[in-house]
Amino acid sequence: MSVPAFHPPVRTLMGPGPSDVNPRILEAMSRPTIGHLDPLFVHMMDEVKGLLKYAFQTENAMTMPVSAPGSAGMECCFVNLVEPGDKVIVCQNGVFGGRMKENVERAGGTAVMVQDPWGSPVDPQKLEEALIANPDAKIVAFVHAETSTGAQSDARTLVEIAHKNECLTIVDAVTSLAGSPLKVDEWGIDAIYSGTQKCLSCTPGLSPVSFSEAALEKVRKRKSKVQSWFLDLNLVMAYWGGGTKRAYHHTAPVNALYGLHEALRIVQEEGLENAWARHQRNHLALRAGLEAMGIEFVVEESARLPQLNAVRIPEGANDAATRSRLLNDFNLEIGAGLGDLAGKIWRIGLMGYASRAENILLCLAALEAVLADQGAKISRGEAIAAASQLLAD
Amino acid sequence: MSVPAFHPPVRTLMGPGPSDVNPRILEAMSRPTIGHLDPLFVHMMDEVKGLLKYAFQTENAMTMPVSAPGSAGMECCFVNLVEPGDKVIVCQNGVFGGRMKENVERAGGTAVMVQDPWGSPVDPQKLEEALIANPDAKIVAFVHAETSTGAQSDARTLVEIAHKNECLTIVDAVTSLAGSPLKVDEWGIDAIYSGTQKCLSCTPGLSPVSFSEAALEKVRKRKSKVQSWFLDLNLVMAYWGGGTKRAYHHTAPVNALYGLHEALRIVQEEGLENAWARHQRNHLALRAGLEAMGIEFVVEESARLPQLNAVRIPEGANDAATRSRLLNDFNLEIGAGLGDLAGKIWRIGLMGYASRAENILLCLAALEAVLADQGAKISRGEAIAAASQLLAD
Repeated sequence: MSVPAFHPPVRTLMGPGPSDVNPRILEAMSRPTIGHLDPLFVHMMDEVKGLLKYAFQTENAMTMPVSAPGSAGMECCFVNLVEPGDKVIVCQNGVFGGRMKENVERAGGTAVMVQDPWGSPVDPQKLEEALIANPDAKIVAFVHAETSTGAQSDARTLVEIAHKNECLTIVDAVTSLAGSPLKVDEWGIDAIYSGTQKCLSCTPGLSPVSFSEAALEKVRKRKSKVQSWFLDLNLVMAYWGGGTKRAYHHTAPVNALYGLHEALRIVQEEGLENAWARHQRNHLALRAGLEAMGIEFVVEESARLPQLNAVRIPEGANDAATRSRLLNDFNLEIGAGLGDLAGKIWRIGLMGYASRAENILLCLAALEAVLADQGAKISRGEAIAAASQLLAD
Repeated sequence: MSVPAFHPPVRTLMGPGPSDVNPRILEAMSRPTIGHLDPLFVHMMDEVKGLLKYAFQTENAMTMPVSAPGSAGMECCFVNLVEPGDKVIVCQNGVFGGRMKENVERAGGTAVMVQDPWGSPVDPQKLEEALIANPDAKIVAFVHAETSTGAQSDARTLVEIAHKNECLTIVDAVTSLAGSPLKVDEWGIDAIYSGTQKCLSCTPGLSPVSFSEAALEKVRKRKSKVQSWFLDLNLVMAYWGGGTKRAYHHTAPVNALYGLHEALRIVQEEGLENAWARHQRNHLALRAGLEAMGIEFVVEESARLPQLNAVRIPEGANDAATRSRLLNDFNLEIGAGLGDLAGKIWRIGLMGYASRAENILLCLAALEAVLADQGAKISRGEAIAAASQLLAD
């Protein structure tokens, strides 16, 4: 067996992630590897922590990237905060709430599920009722930005309700970080995890996390050891901690961290507020184009994520064939539906570096071409004008 | 706070890892990111699996990289194979055996420790005795190549003893894979994990693992769920499995996998046997040079790892000052001692791409210059000749 070199095509990544990676980040990742205990690398790690605090809008000392994808960041939050026997209220309105339930149970906790329809935000009232019915609950967990549906929940209100009932909060911000407003300290979030491959526009593989002092206090007071050695905050913190002497824990993914460092510098250069505004502006342009074609959104307007546009597959369109042709003919990736929404929706990402005017026009033009060719029920010839008018504003 | 771009210096990495990364790998990692479910990427994942089978010398279907560093690969083996109540014999002869004990206990198992001095290989006789004393043991775990001491254990014999006593085996091959002989199928290893940043000369961040049919059978028959969602083989396999339809589990670290793909291609081009011979030849040259300086090895000759040379710090030398000067004056990284051996030894890696003639001469020359300057007790002027004679052979 002789395996040729892998030279990927240049795709435009407008699915639910990974999103288009800024070329500056790819260049940064290809810089020479140095030792993970090299003083220069340790200094860079400190800068990554500082930049992450800005991105999360937090002063939490325990803010750092877990050396593994977002799923591991989720697990890091749950295995550290949930002790055997703990009751956790999990608000589910999509795929990732279900994964939270798995995490609670595997950590020995009991999950009380609060269900909302997929595509709707979490209903604060239902959370309040669940907390009244379960006064012994210790933690409330929810997804800020549901990647499976494109719905955004009101994190500030949900945290407020949780705190009124003396619960800590675990928040999934995989898709929201740097794409739409997220204020960890102002909203009082206790534990949060994200991913690098969404609105940070970095390559996938790392999971930024942040923990409040109250969350760390619960970790410190645990009666049992954290079940994961790799994700044990007590150990990870001694490695990522601010001290001059780092305790060796694992070998950090050096080059991936070069990439994250550059991605976070780009966020800082643009400014978070500007990035949020750009995502919103581009979302409105894409929306105008899609609606001009007659394509409908899944999520009601007030809860739509600007960075992840979930739309109903129009009548007469073939789901898989459409995505294949977009990929093969135009190198354009959009996302399929997940779980209950598979075959019913597409997820069009406008995340980070992918949230650009040229991507919007390409997506609308390619979608119109492919759908028209299939004889799907859409309006033709209006989308580009509708979108470009908003882009010009 | 404005953070400048991070431009690392070009170091020569001769510590315990990360080792020098082949520039071909850095270039591969900077290629355009594509989707983790893109058919072209899925095809590349299959190639990575095939190439890993070659590197591990196995036909195990369950051979793939865990999307996190070696510590997570270790945890993947233990959380899947160890069920609550299982007794595991852990052979310890360095730092990493201790980490195995932590993993066993956090997975709810009982660890029975078989201790050997740091720097010695695991004593097969002691393992036999432990198995006689613990006939209810289910698993034997040991480190093939102890990164903390440079000692190599006789994996084939240890596995044979374990199997005679109906135990499965978990083997740490973080430092041995592609650096010295390792034959998973021929030796009958049941579960094995490694890292990318040692003799594969890739960047750190992934952990190749492989599981035998017998190991998978134990996973399938578990009474309790695997405690880690991220590392649950049942879920990971549905993602990495050979089927045409992949079940989404987590977002693979796309660009890191480009790098591993290229690293494994390089191993295949050279040929495993040639790579093993190169590591051995270069070890002998470095050894000749170090011994000419009067520097002694920690590990007896028969158990020395060619890719990791643990040597005693000579009289009159300052540990930290020597390593700092090597790094700052010559951009050369060598490793400090870990645990009980901190301050007593250095660990000089000749791993993968770092195992080159020019690195050996640089290391000897720089070490001699710095040690002489400190007035350490070494012989001068002989090392280069001693090493280069063997390199010329």
